[in-house]
Amino acid sequence: MTIATKKQYKSLTKVHAILYAKGLHFFSEDAELHCREIGDGNLNYVFHIKDAQSERSLIIKQALPYAKVVGESWPLTLKRATIEAIALKKQAEYVPTLVPTVYATDEDLAITVMEDLSHLKIAREGLIHLESYPKLSRDIGEYLAQTLFHTSDFALHPFEKKGLVSEFSNPELCKITEDLIFTDPFFDHETNDFEPSLRAEVEVIWNNERLKLEVAKLKRSFLTEAEALLHGDLHTGSIFASETETKVIDPEFAFYGPIGFDIGIFLANLIVQSITRETEARNTILQHIEQTWEVFSSTFSTLWKSKSIESYKDTKGFEEYVLDKIFRDTLGFAGCELIRRTIGLAHVKDLDAIVEEEQRLHFKKQALQVGKTLILKRYDLHSIDAVIALLEELHK
Amino acid sequence: MTIATKKQYKSLTKVHAILYAKGLHFFSEDAELHCREIGDGNLNYVFHIKDAQSERSLIIKQALPYAKVVGESWPLTLKRATIEAIALKKQAEYVPTLVPTVYATDEDLAITVMEDLSHLKIAREGLIHLESYPKLSRDIGEYLAQTLFHTSDFALHPFEKKGLVSEFSNPELCKITEDLIFTDPFFDHETNDFEPSLRAEVEVIWNNERLKLEVAKLKRSFLTEAEALLHGDLHTGSIFASETETKVIDPEFAFYGPIGFDIGIFLANLIVQSITRETEARNTILQHIEQTWEVFSSTFSTLWKSKSIESYKDTKGFEEYVLDKIFRDTLGFAGCELIRRTIGLAHVKDLDAIVEEEQRLHFKKQALQVGKTLILKRYDLHSIDAVIALLEELHK
Repeated sequence: MTIATKKQYKSLTKVHAILYAKGLHFFSEDAELHCREIGDGNLNYVFHIKDAQSERSLIIKQALPYAKVVGESWPLTLKRATIEAIALKKQAEYVPTLVPTVYATDEDLAITVMEDLSHLKIAREGLIHLESYPKLSRDIGEYLAQTLFHTSDFALHPFEKKGLVSEFSNPELCKITEDLIFTDPFFDHETNDFEPSLRAEVEVIWNNERLKLEVAKLKRSFLTEAEALLHGDLHTGSIFASETETKVIDPEFAFYGPIGFDIGIFLANLIVQSITRETEARNTILQHIEQTWEVFSSTFSTLWKSKSIESYKDTKGFEEYVLDKIFRDTLGFAGCELIRRTIGLAHVKDLDAIVEEEQRLHFKKQALQVGKTLILKRYDLHSIDAVIALLEELHK
Repeated sequence: MTIATKKQYKSLTKVHAILYAKGLHFFSEDAELHCREIGDGNLNYVFHIKDAQSERSLIIKQALPYAKVVGESWPLTLKRATIEAIALKKQAEYVPTLVPTVYATDEDLAITVMEDLSHLKIAREGLIHLESYPKLSRDIGEYLAQTLFHTSDFALHPFEKKGLVSEFSNPELCKITEDLIFTDPFFDHETNDFEPSLRAEVEVIWNNERLKLEVAKLKRSFLTEAEALLHGDLHTGSIFASETETKVIDPEFAFYGPIGFDIGIFLANLIVQSITRETEARNTILQHIEQTWEVFSSTFSTLWKSKSIESYKDTKGFEEYVLDKIFRDTLGFAGCELIRRTIGLAHVKDLDAIVEEEQRLHFKKQALQVGKTLILKRYDLHSIDAVIALLEELHK
């Protein structure tokens, strides 16, 4: 199948994209379509196609057969376009208002045609500019609970769940996570990228055997625990937001993994924001952190009680055990994300774009410190309030 | 694929089996072949085909499209023949002397042609008759360490491992285990089967919330943890043995699951033997129990040091953490097996064939007691010696 795909694959130009859009019967036949390429060109083409007269528009996203990272280009499976499309459709079964609608897919061309969300802003950009997203944490908490519960063994017949595990087998993109989140940052590896002034802190991490043991355990969870269909890359750059809307995009890393991974990645990216912000603006983020967990856990718990097909669902302590495991995993994965976003290959603008060096380094050291604490103390931090207290402590 | 298979499938007769064997070019062209059907007829046909003159022989095993259990017949996927054949071939890469050689496979007819092992006896039968299998635990310890280590993330590139996870997706047969080992025996379920005199003990199990919580956790491990390619049904009825040979057969339940499951199922079946035996004969079994774990863990540890590709393999404490988790899982799964073999659908002859009622009930109560203890105390039993002590305690 991969070979067949590669034979027929051809990357689109703007002219092709307009022709492709006309074939979809989405626009009226005589529509005059305008096309802009709005992707970053590293992994995908993203064509924005609009009929100025009717104001109708759509997005044609095409995966490129390579990834450009730090100047280099390496081959990357086109299957990720299929994974992204089927993940968006699966998620739409549970949270239709929180993901873009998929209009069409084309496996041979690695194309997904979907709802135009260009009226929204990428949450990371908005958060850096202190924009207000009052619905963000409620929506993401809901997204997490609905997608993760409904794709788990608690909700699905085992035949259906195991079918999805195979359908969403995603070795190439999982390997990126295995290397860049769980391995390279904890060793002196060439993919790492950090300012020379951080070297002392980084070497402390590389030499911290207790920390590495805990990361090894978390990596093992990621490698072996097929709990639910994850988004797989749920940072604030994978979220479109406004004051009234939230849409989760780009689930090309989707696979069956540990539930806490999605929650942890999202919380870590909020934690970075909380580190960089001043008092009042910081409180908004701390509330988002708290609310994400509260909405996730209470919604998950409601679904457990109303919809779980697990024979042991009413066994005393089992729901608490499952939620407690998710919470510990969440903290550990968040810690890994904080460390890799600071010293690994892929950084975040929230930290890197801070011009003033001393300030930037100070925040980066805090991100490393919080990362380590979340990993090492994840069995001592007994509630999301304890995490909030830890973050508030940084500013005292 | 399933539909195509079902179209072409036809069950063999002895005459067909001989014709089929002739087509394999295993025997000389003028060989006069004799055929006996030696299966139990519940799940598979097993044709023993022999050329009296050359003394050469082979087995043609054909899966039937249904299973007969307690008089009923229900449909059962033919894919299990494929799973069994590819599992035997995969295991032969690591322990060629401990599995039957596969000569040929036929997916459409659900046939596996393999080495004739009829000079050996099923270990369960031999053990019941106190036969001596001095190599049994060394061989099974070796089998477990080699097959489980080499199919895990510790040995395989992640692309290869994830490919195998999909290849060995085995929902139908896993569901049998999920129901018959992890669920039904712990609830008042119609599949259960126990003597009325055991009812009081059984109801204590059904009402023991602490026990059920621990079983729920073990079931969750079974459902989610893709650690290694398991045999999936490694009881003493899946082992051919003699004084000099051990061969593990029937891996039709093979799938990616928690490593401790295979070890636990095997140990539980030895534990049943230890319960039913008198002093000296019992010591032989206790030594087998100890040796299985010792050989497994020391071989696994040697492979870890010499062959692990895991970046964290030298991180202090990680190997111990992994082996400790396997040990706890082993005890828990062994406990579930002991309980289900006593009160669930599928019993063992070791207990059921004891004619004297009081004796039989006494041993069954002990099996339930040990099962419960292994599940509930698996974090307090710190070594295999502690398990042996627990078993010796029964006879004081």
